[in-house]
Amino acid sequence: MQIAMLQDKIVPLGELEPVYLDRGIYFGDGIYEVVRSYNGKIFALQEHLERFASNLAAIEISRVDISVIRRRIQKAFDAAGIANAKIYFHITRGSEQREHTFDASLEPNFFLTVTELADDTKIKAEGIAVSTHPDWRWKRCDIKSLNLLANVLARADAARKGCAEAILVDEKGLITEGAGSAFFAIFGKQLQTAGLEANVLPSITRKFAIKAAQKIGLQVIEKSMTVQQAGDADELFIAVTTKDIVGVVRFDDKVIGNGRVGKYTKMLAEKFHSFTV
Amino acid sequence: MQIAMLQDKIVPLGELEPVYLDRGIYFGDGIYEVVRSYNGKIFALQEHLERFASNLAAIEISRVDISVIRRRIQKAFDAAGIANAKIYFHITRGSEQREHTFDASLEPNFFLTVTELADDTKIKAEGIAVSTHPDWRWKRCDIKSLNLLANVLARADAARKGCAEAILVDEKGLITEGAGSAFFAIFGKQLQTAGLEANVLPSITRKFAIKAAQKIGLQVIEKSMTVQQAGDADELFIAVTTKDIVGVVRFDDKVIGNGRVGKYTKMLAEKFHSFTV
Repeated sequence: MQIAMLQDKIVPLGELEPVYLDRGIYFGDGIYEVVRSYNGKIFALQEHLERFASNLAAIEISRVDISVIRRRIQKAFDAAGIANAKIYFHITRGSEQREHTFDASLEPNFFLTVTELADDTKIKAEGIAVSTHPDWRWKRCDIKSLNLLANVLARADAARKGCAEAILVDEKGLITEGAGSAFFAIFGKQLQTAGLEANVLPSITRKFAIKAAQKIGLQVIEKSMTVQQAGDADELFIAVTTKDIVGVVRFDDKVIGNGRVGKYTKMLAEKFHSFTV
Repeated sequence: MQIAMLQDKIVPLGELEPVYLDRGIYFGDGIYEVVRSYNGKIFALQEHLERFASNLAAIEISRVDISVIRRRIQKAFDAAGIANAKIYFHITRGSEQREHTFDASLEPNFFLTVTELADDTKIKAEGIAVSTHPDWRWKRCDIKSLNLLANVLARADAARKGCAEAILVDEKGLITEGAGSAFFAIFGKQLQTAGLEANVLPSITRKFAIKAAQKIGLQVIEKSMTVQQAGDADELFIAVTTKDIVGVVRFDDKVIGNGRVGKYTKMLAEKFHSFTV
């Protein structure tokens, strides 16, 4: 008889709930998004849904109606009643016995959580320390997939060093992005970040950070930088959906600027917030 | 209130079963193994458990007693009563609200299935067709992790081309391995396969295939080959736990040998089987 075992309990395979056979767990075979609300209003949902749809297509998950997903998100957000919420959702290809190949008729699994965002007043005011780590991720980081072990290991390494984010460095010695964020440097009146061809996620917060930079008169350069270059920047910051713009005040062993969140970083955060109201 | 949503059903987050919060699904944060039995006897379990233990350590999952895992495998295998069984098992870091960083005290989740192996008489006799695909995997393929989306996409591409396996080709144009197998070529009396430094899995079936080659007097060369070189081989085969050695008779558009499973491939399969009794 075909069986399954959960910890030390044996169950007939046929009686297992579908979630145990989710291709998300077997292969990371799914796409996710994180959106947030500011004061009761979800920010940039349209942009996130467009990326989500395009990522689903990239891994050949069809049979998903994005308008249904949009309604579910709104329904869940309304039900939770959390003003400053983090909304995580993923779709996996579905549940079936483990086999790399898949049947296109499989019904995808949708999963979502709405949770409260942690208070970020302190880290926004004081900035964070970051450390570098080799970028071990796959070559399709343009796809926001559930294959995130490289990110987890890099973040664990950063945490051991007392850092809040790991900045990933590719084999050529160039910075791609953070394990869970986009990465930016300011040199004089120039804002620099890796271009989208550098195996980075087309980050939506990155896009709004660039827009904010243009609004405050910074010149934007999309070009990869070395670890050495980043360490010599006037200001550094990361951009991530849940916290928007967060200043970086230590980069490996280097103190950035005067160890405080930089002037332009603060201006960018302020400008960014004007987009969210 | 913090909530979750499964398809279109809202549930309080606190009432969700832990499996929905498995870090395996969020991040692919786990390690797996596949072992098989031949006529009621599990093959190379010790080797698989050693690799499993070393992989768990590589991703910093502690708190796993391998002797417990061994007993569970034996218990499940005995309960299933399947002579030629495929035993799949994984351990993930555990279940908790989604956060890249983790608490080392989290209890890992163990999952196992015992299923019947499909009859492989036909493919063993006739061989298989394979097609090449860019190797999009992460840079730690020495770790047998649940991050397998690149493998899934490569295998889907192969299936569309009527092929049973995708052979992965890195950015330098060198073959690493199959999406779910090790890859070998025979040139004259030489057996060639990529070395373990080539971002490949230290495959246990590969190890036994090499041992079989040495026993039948082939010279073994562990060196990466190009697609062109592989297409010019006298014989090609893949090695995978569930099917051991399977001849390759078509490689992209090239017919290998005379389109039948090669002489040495057959000898290697026979020798391999002598290890399994």
